[in-house]
Amino acid sequence: MSILDGHPVITVGARLFDEALAAQGVETTAVDWRPPPAGTGQALGAIAGDRRTAEANGLAVERMVTARPEVMGITTAAAALGIDGPQFLHAGPPITWERASGPLRGAIIGGLLFEGLADTPAAAESLAPTVELQPCHHHRAVGPMAGIMTPSMPVFELHDAANGTTAYSTLNEGLGKVLRYGAYGPEVIERLVWMRDVLAPVLGAALARIGPYDVRAMIAQSLQMGDEGHNRNRAGTSLFLREVVGALVDVASPASDLGAVARFIAGNDHFVLNLVMPCAKAAADAARDLPCSSVVVAMARNGTDFGIQLSGTGDRWFTAPAQTPKGLTFPGFGDDDVNPDIGDSTITETYGIGGMAMACAPAIVRFVGGSVAEATAKTMSAYEITLTENPHLQIPTLDFRGTPTGIDAARVVRTGIVPPVNTGMAGRVAGTGQVGAGLVEPPMGCFVQAVLALAEELPAFASSPSSPGGQ
Amino acid sequence: MSILDGHPVITVGARLFDEALAAQGVETTAVDWRPPPAGTGQALGAIAGDRRTAEANGLAVERMVTARPEVMGITTAAAALGIDGPQFLHAGPPITWERASGPLRGAIIGGLLFEGLADTPAAAESLAPTVELQPCHHHRAVGPMAGIMTPSMPVFELHDAANGTTAYSTLNEGLGKVLRYGAYGPEVIERLVWMRDVLAPVLGAALARIGPYDVRAMIAQSLQMGDEGHNRNRAGTSLFLREVVGALVDVASPASDLGAVARFIAGNDHFVLNLVMPCAKAAADAARDLPCSSVVVAMARNGTDFGIQLSGTGDRWFTAPAQTPKGLTFPGFGDDDVNPDIGDSTITETYGIGGMAMACAPAIVRFVGGSVAEATAKTMSAYEITLTENPHLQIPTLDFRGTPTGIDAARVVRTGIVPPVNTGMAGRVAGTGQVGAGLVEPPMGCFVQAVLALAEELPAFASSPSSPGGQ
Repeated sequence: MSILDGHPVITVGARLFDEALAAQGVETTAVDWRPPPAGTGQALGAIAGDRRTAEANGLAVERMVTARPEVMGITTAAAALGIDGPQFLHAGPPITWERASGPLRGAIIGGLLFEGLADTPAAAESLAPTVELQPCHHHRAVGPMAGIMTPSMPVFELHDAANGTTAYSTLNEGLGKVLRYGAYGPEVIERLVWMRDVLAPVLGAALARIGPYDVRAMIAQSLQMGDEGHNRNRAGTSLFLREVVGALVDVASPASDLGAVARFIAGNDHFVLNLVMPCAKAAADAARDLPCSSVVVAMARNGTDFGIQLSGTGDRWFTAPAQTPKGLTFPGFGDDDVNPDIGDSTITETYGIGGMAMACAPAIVRFVGGSVAEATAKTMSAYEITLTENPHLQIPTLDFRGTPTGIDAARVVRTGIVPPVNTGMAGRVAGTGQVGAGLVEPPMGCFVQAVLALAEELPAFASSPSSPGGQ
Repeated sequence: MSILDGHPVITVGARLFDEALAAQGVETTAVDWRPPPAGTGQALGAIAGDRRTAEANGLAVERMVTARPEVMGITTAAAALGIDGPQFLHAGPPITWERASGPLRGAIIGGLLFEGLADTPAAAESLAPTVELQPCHHHRAVGPMAGIMTPSMPVFELHDAANGTTAYSTLNEGLGKVLRYGAYGPEVIERLVWMRDVLAPVLGAALARIGPYDVRAMIAQSLQMGDEGHNRNRAGTSLFLREVVGALVDVASPASDLGAVARFIAGNDHFVLNLVMPCAKAAADAARDLPCSSVVVAMARNGTDFGIQLSGTGDRWFTAPAQTPKGLTFPGFGDDDVNPDIGDSTITETYGIGGMAMACAPAIVRFVGGSVAEATAKTMSAYEITLTENPHLQIPTLDFRGTPTGIDAARVVRTGIVPPVNTGMAGRVAGTGQVGAGLVEPPMGCFVQAVLALAEELPAFASSPSSPGGQ
């Protein structure tokens, strides 16, 4: 007996609701299906027919799902990532100054000013082409938007005890005119200095006091509270502040620093994005380097190229020109001001949240555009190209179904469905900062190249001594 | 052109989704319809045929919707509500010690201990029948569960400038063994003393520093973040802490007090329930005393009776025996331990949130039981018995539809649909505390009585000098 007896509406409604969603999912596949690009049929056949791929993929997603990264503390990029002087890390696949877009160039200029390697923007710009650029992803790190990490920047260190991976990210600066969006004015540099000299030591001490902080648990809660973890982190930030506020009070002196730190975290809805991203990175890295696996372990953009990596193809990047996001621009900006897609934050989608879990976050359509039904449809489409559902990260409006996890490049190519991504939008011109937020599609070309490369390597694996999961 | 061109699923899905919900709403009416109780036909006809009722109801819901109550600060029950010595306020319609249930008795005992009017529980129990009991609602106040307010307790003061109403509530103690659930052990009294001597002055000073705090805006945000404002206030509490944390740091000394206050608020997911409730009370009171109006302006329970008040029938209570909630009990407790429904917190449903807005809070089914579809169905049923939708409080999963606002007692009787309510569950035995949370139905008898009484008074209004809205 239920107290709802005598109210048949509830089961009727539930069925209709379920059917509508199911129909939506089915339609997605049926209507959205496009024939695999020319030349991929044989590769897809080879991958589908290889039992080792299925086994390796199973192991890859198991590792992603079991990953439970915790914040170990705050260190510096120099200490953790082994960079020094004019060695900067950046988001996305490898790139040079010559090919860099405006926001990446702006962030490099800002990084030189912040490090004291140049005194003026003009001096920084002359010096910029000599900066040694390497992807964050090559250093177990991820950076939102331009993703510039310079040696003296503080970074969060996360560790996943389940799989033994470690990952890093900078601390989030907030929105608007910030380095990661390519701004480098005095207020940007002053904020970075304050973050290094006040925020990082105070927050680091508070984190040390509370002990390892379970980021997956925070994400799980935030998905129940309208976040999707990429462009909406309001709940996660709120929960993080609640968790650390007592320890902040214990460790902070003088009180002026405490007030500034508390207000800074409280005033930035995106503060925990820079915990969510390395959490996703640690989980995705746990799935790396499994021979024959077609699981995507990185999707990242440098503002010029979109690149992906597969578990089974090692450190190779498969790139294509980055598309330009479409969405809602801030007052004073229009579509023409938007830079092509940029940032490592697509590690959230790689992990199965962000655009993949937009059904969690109907309110995000007010930030990135679109409708609530579209947000749900994005998630339904993501189930078509993923291998499992993460039981630790649940979507309340889909009756607590797990997030779509483990993007299979072969499924992407076969179905024609690319992973749904939402993103911040940077101004094209160096120095501008953020101009809005929107939706973007990863280029199918990356996935096609990856699938062709994997298929080509399958015979070589056969004669290799390593077996799936045997590393 | 949309970036979603070529993905017809989205519009298909949107329409299906909308249709499913629409169908659900229609089915609700069709399937759930029961003939109005015997004897009510004539009364319903009289009310439906009276243009003054429609006009007064329009004014009533306009006032509810325009209400924007702000926190003005913290004062004491003695100063604000004019009570002294053994004068205690309680939740629900009027009641005596003799008819009081266990949790209300337990809270009265605890109140006597807290006020120093008795030294032991035994002494308090002897004294308890002499305590002068009055409903919170008679003093512009609302109290969750037992709702006991004693003279020296700190209370939030809220004011709605739009309608000129003021409302009060105590500060929330947290869950488990707390006074409002009828517990009165030493830890309960010690906590109340700390709340009076440390929490109230520190938080009061912080609130003074930030100035009037817009509670409706906080609720609006929290509804986008999985709260429904009654039994899920996790987001609201998080947002409130973010808003006040900087001011707390500024005003608090010594640091030990600051740490304790920050941890107390951060550690209690229900902290802002006691801001949401007086916000709803101020809004509902704005709709009071409009001649001929059939809008419900109070629903409240004292643990023995469920009572409602209509705008058009002044201070009269229409009561019926309180039903026992059904839901999820904490480990160690079962259905037999649950007291009948208790508390003024149904002021949230009166305002159109709580159980009425459960579609906002799919995750709440993990706390009160039921399924996500049932939560949505609750809200769809609420639209059948309300007069308007509050554009300031939106439900994201229903495409930002406004919350169902202004319960019309005539519609309740005509449709047979009672307002959906979710609630905490108190232990039957005085001293137990909370035993769980669940769903409950207000008794239809209250609404039948109210409709009959209103219909009876309509002719008298005709010869009265006051006209709807003329007060």
